[in-house]
Amino acid sequence: MDSLKSNAFSKKALRTKDPPISWLMKMALARPHLISLAAGFTDSPSLPASEVREILDDLWKEPRDVLAALQYGNTAGDEILREWTRQRLEKRDHLNQALSNEQIVIGNGSQQLLSLVTEILCDPGDIILLEDPTYFVFLGIVESCGLEAVPFADSRELRDRLARLKAEGKAGRVKLAYFVSYYRNPTGTSLSSNDKKEIAGILKDFEQTHPIYILEDAAYRDLRFHGQDISSFLAHDPRLERTIYTATYTKPFATGLKVGFAVAPEALVPPILRFKGNEDFGTSHFDQQILQRVVRGGYYEKHLEQIAEVYRKKAGAMEQSLKQHFPKEAQWNTPSGGLYYWVSLPPGTDCGVESDIFKKSLDAEVFYVPGELCYCESAYRKRPCHQMRLSFGSASIEQIREGIRRLGSVLKASTLPRFQHQGG
Amino acid sequence: MDSLKSNAFSKKALRTKDPPISWLMKMALARPHLISLAAGFTDSPSLPASEVREILDDLWKEPRDVLAALQYGNTAGDEILREWTRQRLEKRDHLNQALSNEQIVIGNGSQQLLSLVTEILCDPGDIILLEDPTYFVFLGIVESCGLEAVPFADSRELRDRLARLKAEGKAGRVKLAYFVSYYRNPTGTSLSSNDKKEIAGILKDFEQTHPIYILEDAAYRDLRFHGQDISSFLAHDPRLERTIYTATYTKPFATGLKVGFAVAPEALVPPILRFKGNEDFGTSHFDQQILQRVVRGGYYEKHLEQIAEVYRKKAGAMEQSLKQHFPKEAQWNTPSGGLYYWVSLPPGTDCGVESDIFKKSLDAEVFYVPGELCYCESAYRKRPCHQMRLSFGSASIEQIREGIRRLGSVLKASTLPRFQHQGG
Repeated sequence: MDSLKSNAFSKKALRTKDPPISWLMKMALARPHLISLAAGFTDSPSLPASEVREILDDLWKEPRDVLAALQYGNTAGDEILREWTRQRLEKRDHLNQALSNEQIVIGNGSQQLLSLVTEILCDPGDIILLEDPTYFVFLGIVESCGLEAVPFADSRELRDRLARLKAEGKAGRVKLAYFVSYYRNPTGTSLSSNDKKEIAGILKDFEQTHPIYILEDAAYRDLRFHGQDISSFLAHDPRLERTIYTATYTKPFATGLKVGFAVAPEALVPPILRFKGNEDFGTSHFDQQILQRVVRGGYYEKHLEQIAEVYRKKAGAMEQSLKQHFPKEAQWNTPSGGLYYWVSLPPGTDCGVESDIFKKSLDAEVFYVPGELCYCESAYRKRPCHQMRLSFGSASIEQIREGIRRLGSVLKASTLPRFQHQGG
Repeated sequence: MDSLKSNAFSKKALRTKDPPISWLMKMALARPHLISLAAGFTDSPSLPASEVREILDDLWKEPRDVLAALQYGNTAGDEILREWTRQRLEKRDHLNQALSNEQIVIGNGSQQLLSLVTEILCDPGDIILLEDPTYFVFLGIVESCGLEAVPFADSRELRDRLARLKAEGKAGRVKLAYFVSYYRNPTGTSLSSNDKKEIAGILKDFEQTHPIYILEDAAYRDLRFHGQDISSFLAHDPRLERTIYTATYTKPFATGLKVGFAVAPEALVPPILRFKGNEDFGTSHFDQQILQRVVRGGYYEKHLEQIAEVYRKKAGAMEQSLKQHFPKEAQWNTPSGGLYYWVSLPPGTDCGVESDIFKKSLDAEVFYVPGELCYCESAYRKRPCHQMRLSFGSASIEQIREGIRRLGSVLKASTLPRFQHQGG
């Protein structure tokens, strides 16, 4: 055996732990009869097989375009895709032609852009403000980069945290605030336009020597199935100096085509591109050429309408099953988009990774994401473990009903405390 | 204007400069009549348009497979692609079933894997040993990670450098040695099997408290058009503990499909996957499903034979033109694979980025990579600027002939010193 193991890894590697989700996924794979309400996968039957086929047929009618699609592109991404992305965003957020195509960077899903933006701004020891709870894969990035995560539940708590950071002399270390602002992963709720305006103001007022950027992860914005669209943080940043907006064509269209994008203040684009140049000097050009034709040909908007119908039904089925099978102590908000229900059991209940409820659920062949995984470690509060993230993305309606029924049985067989009324 | 600019970027971002190649590419794009012998692009007319079409047709015959291809895969990559990659490599390098599929990680081209491996092993201030000259994009990674680059031209120089590092008390900081071992970018030459064996031994003997890994970038191995294949470093690492081997299906098959791989010692796989999980949790599943069918269906090996013929001809045209048009002072080796000729003018000549020769070449609408960009900054030697990298990858035979003719005219109109004979 090899005795020279010490000091072989970088500090970053030593900080970077195995993501909890990989362990969960392995467990799921080992139980083929498991109903998974855990994965953030999308609905497979409604994936755009015939649309992609049409696009490929069209592409192959133009031999020059095929060769171009099979050749390298550039680091920033396909010009037409960037142009379309810019125009659509300007229109949605009433930006009045404020953006330039140069501010759009195409990435390997939005995930790569979340990672790149964090890397170009933050050194180990820097502070990142996080909604509490938040997207657990992003918590992996935070940990890997050696950042101090400061969680906040709302704007009031954000003010409190910032006041405390200031009092502790840590104000200068705050670099970034991260928001999954639409149909949040995990809670299914959205940040209102007023909330965004207020938060942007709070952060701007707090700035001292350097900008505090807002990283808005809009991965689920296009998965809306009820209600109206909400303006992004970009709409509250008239000179587009503080907001990095990331989103993806992967999640709403086809998760197998890995193409996302970021819109960033001009000053941030060169470092993002330099980092991306070192990582891969450009996202799959073939995937981009497909997506470019998807958006240009109107396939994208049409597909969004179709899947809205699909997820509306699936969410409805989950809502109905929750009402039917879950104990009355369980609480949740009804989402208007995205892929998730976030169910709170009374505080004091443990449905976390090591809990009886989680183990019994697995025994009953049903699987959820324990909510505790969506909370960062923090001195500001204990990590809650009385919540579960339930996805209606990839499971069929039948599986959703059966899965919730099984979970409900597990919960009803457990002794749950009752929700305490406020003040007592 | 925004006055709060200071401290906004991470130390890594401040270290990461614009890659010279992006500047070169912009210049090329601005001159549409330019003959580019600079880019490492591949031959467009021989891209596998009909092969990919066949595979897509077959794929669409199986609706379940289409949906699977359009859905997420996993972080490590497609099982069948990893299995095929492992078997092929074991056979080529006579590894006697030493590898497991778990040691194969699929990435966004091999570039992502070069970046990930460097990141998991090296902290700022660590030392990386580099062939001199080397792949300039990798020099960008080295700079971005804040590493000290120690260049060496051959095994004798490697011994000298290591002795000096030891004498200076820096031995403990050496983490990694990087090799573009096949038809090198930029020199077109390869490292022999004996050289690999000797180098692996030198590095192993130098180890003290921690392993020194060999990062073998075999991106051009499959672009062989003369002679025999050479065993990789894996063949000299019987327990597969020190070698990380990276290669790609992108370069030899279709650069628009971004799928590469690494083979790594077992201990390195978990951190590589953790970093990849944070960056993108998996390479484009659609691209992988195409490539999986490319290799499994025998398209890959067939395509390699076809392009060997193409590049053999193109390299032959470049050789002939160099002989015909370049001044007798120019020297080069004839490559047996890859995409490059590396031409040395007599030392003392300047054909670097700021040189008259480079400017006059651009005026003559021909474009090469100044060799100086392929040398790291180092206290060990001055950065040579009397060489040029000439690519026969994407230019047509006609363009190669015309480009070399123009370059030859520029060189013949310049006053070149003569090569000095050894010893005076």
